[in-house]
Amino acid sequence: METASQLLQAFEKYLSQLHFPQQPQNLYAPIRYSLQVGGKRIRPLACILAAQLYSDEVAEVFPVAAAYEVFHNFTLLHDDLMDDSDVRRNMPSVPKKFGINAAILSGDRMLIAAYELLSVCNASVLPELLIIFNRTAAQVCEGQQMDMDFENSTTISLRDYVEMIRLKTAVLLAACLESGALVAGDTQNIGKSLYEMGVALGVGFQLQDDYLDCYGNEQFGKPIGKDIVNGKKTYLYLHCLANLTEKDRIDFLDIYQNNAIAEAEKIEKILAYFQKTDTQAATWKIAESYFKQAENILQDNINIAYIRKEPLSQLIKQLQQRSV
Amino acid sequence: METASQLLQAFEKYLSQLHFPQQPQNLYAPIRYSLQVGGKRIRPLACILAAQLYSDEVAEVFPVAAAYEVFHNFTLLHDDLMDDSDVRRNMPSVPKKFGINAAILSGDRMLIAAYELLSVCNASVLPELLIIFNRTAAQVCEGQQMDMDFENSTTISLRDYVEMIRLKTAVLLAACLESGALVAGDTQNIGKSLYEMGVALGVGFQLQDDYLDCYGNEQFGKPIGKDIVNGKKTYLYLHCLANLTEKDRIDFLDIYQNNAIAEAEKIEKILAYFQKTDTQAATWKIAESYFKQAENILQDNINIAYIRKEPLSQLIKQLQQRSV
Repeated sequence: METASQLLQAFEKYLSQLHFPQQPQNLYAPIRYSLQVGGKRIRPLACILAAQLYSDEVAEVFPVAAAYEVFHNFTLLHDDLMDDSDVRRNMPSVPKKFGINAAILSGDRMLIAAYELLSVCNASVLPELLIIFNRTAAQVCEGQQMDMDFENSTTISLRDYVEMIRLKTAVLLAACLESGALVAGDTQNIGKSLYEMGVALGVGFQLQDDYLDCYGNEQFGKPIGKDIVNGKKTYLYLHCLANLTEKDRIDFLDIYQNNAIAEAEKIEKILAYFQKTDTQAATWKIAESYFKQAENILQDNINIAYIRKEPLSQLIKQLQQRSV
Repeated sequence: METASQLLQAFEKYLSQLHFPQQPQNLYAPIRYSLQVGGKRIRPLACILAAQLYSDEVAEVFPVAAAYEVFHNFTLLHDDLMDDSDVRRNMPSVPKKFGINAAILSGDRMLIAAYELLSVCNASVLPELLIIFNRTAAQVCEGQQMDMDFENSTTISLRDYVEMIRLKTAVLLAACLESGALVAGDTQNIGKSLYEMGVALGVGFQLQDDYLDCYGNEQFGKPIGKDIVNGKKTYLYLHCLANLTEKDRIDFLDIYQNNAIAEAEKIEKILAYFQKTDTQAATWKIAESYFKQAENILQDNINIAYIRKEPLSQLIKQLQQRSV
């Protein structure tokens, strides 16, 4: 059994050797850029580790893992367009570097490339693989739409928010796990449990993302309170809002939606409201509960030798323990 | 055997019954709008008529025909974004009516919906169907990129232009025909010939589109010379440019690229250059040669009883004889 880091290295090599035509250059250069800029490759790793539950021969699952990674990068291209984001992974975003039309069309081409990668899979699993992938891709669009709708809404519940992040990010990780097992044969029929584990892990990861924006480790260079400065409706924001008195709520909203106020002052004032409502602890607690749920599903519902499950357990811990 | 108009009616009913969720409304409303606004449904009709070469039971091919129609409409959404077009089929375009982000995300969702429709097909033909569809979808993106690149290029040959329209529009019609036969069994192995026929028909159609912009029938309400007014690089423009003297070429380009000049005056002057270079007759001739090629392939290379081929022959004639 290879380690996660060996598997990631092999996968990175596979990904770098994917063939895209040279021409038209304006179509394919943004795709190469997007895939080379990197990222943590969490989704393909999850896919590969799920396949490894069954077999040491996991190269067969690389095209599917790559399909999910290419799909994920496609969503980043179009999200950066819709959110007007200039920076992605500390580099210029594709719309910023190549222009709006390049981001639209290269994104489209990447979505098609994801399906090209799926299509090389064994015909016996292809129909089911497509069902999982299509359903997931549709849900990711729905989650992104909910996220955009939330920007103009004043009545988002915590439950709505968790549903949004489930669709926008968690189901993709879940589908990676389910698909990895499917391609590897899934003789134990654990696909559904892996999927549930992935949803819990993905929701936990995203809630933690909100948490770390305010309470992360600044020493790694990530500024604290970016979401507050941008007035983003995070779990912290919604939890705080739901637990303030009527009067405080009006003041809190005044500050949170105010772009004219100095950044440091805005962050300080909002953090005080978070403290008043015990928002830090509540967010930590709910994120932890999702990580715990993921680990429980892995240990209790997935009837595979522990040694084969260990790398997935490590992945959960690794995501849970990040500080940026 | 049902007539083309009966088949189209049945297909339209099928398309109108496709299920899209109600929520999120901002994601699905633009999709419903785009599919309801209509269009000539040439691509799905071609797909169905290709299936009808083998069997009267063509309902089985409707999901594939719909996949191509949904894909085609997805490209229109994103093309209208990239070209900044406010009007489509005499109605507000999706970006104009619903906004830029809606057009991006709903377009993405439509591309996924096309794959959802393909995925319900018989598993035995699914891998080959995906290969055809993926290759075609990639080529359509490449053609669109070439089209955008041409806007900033001064050295486009007539051959480059035909290659661009082959990729941007003709291969889609070709893939519809090939896929229709594939799903219907294609026992005669005529898929490749149908594909070639579709490419010829699609190129002919697009060249004729350029021709009709200047020499179409104005009585149907379509203004003459829209491409000239917009300075679009059409076959007419490129043919004229290639056949002018050095001195005339400079004057011609001055006028063609001038947006300040009065529309009627610009059209009149450009038409004079077209006349000088015999551009009308040359464009007519080449468009006709492609239609003729399509008909020849249908008659000579597709070994099926004439009565079954007749509707496809009618489709060629119908496209060839349109005046708007």
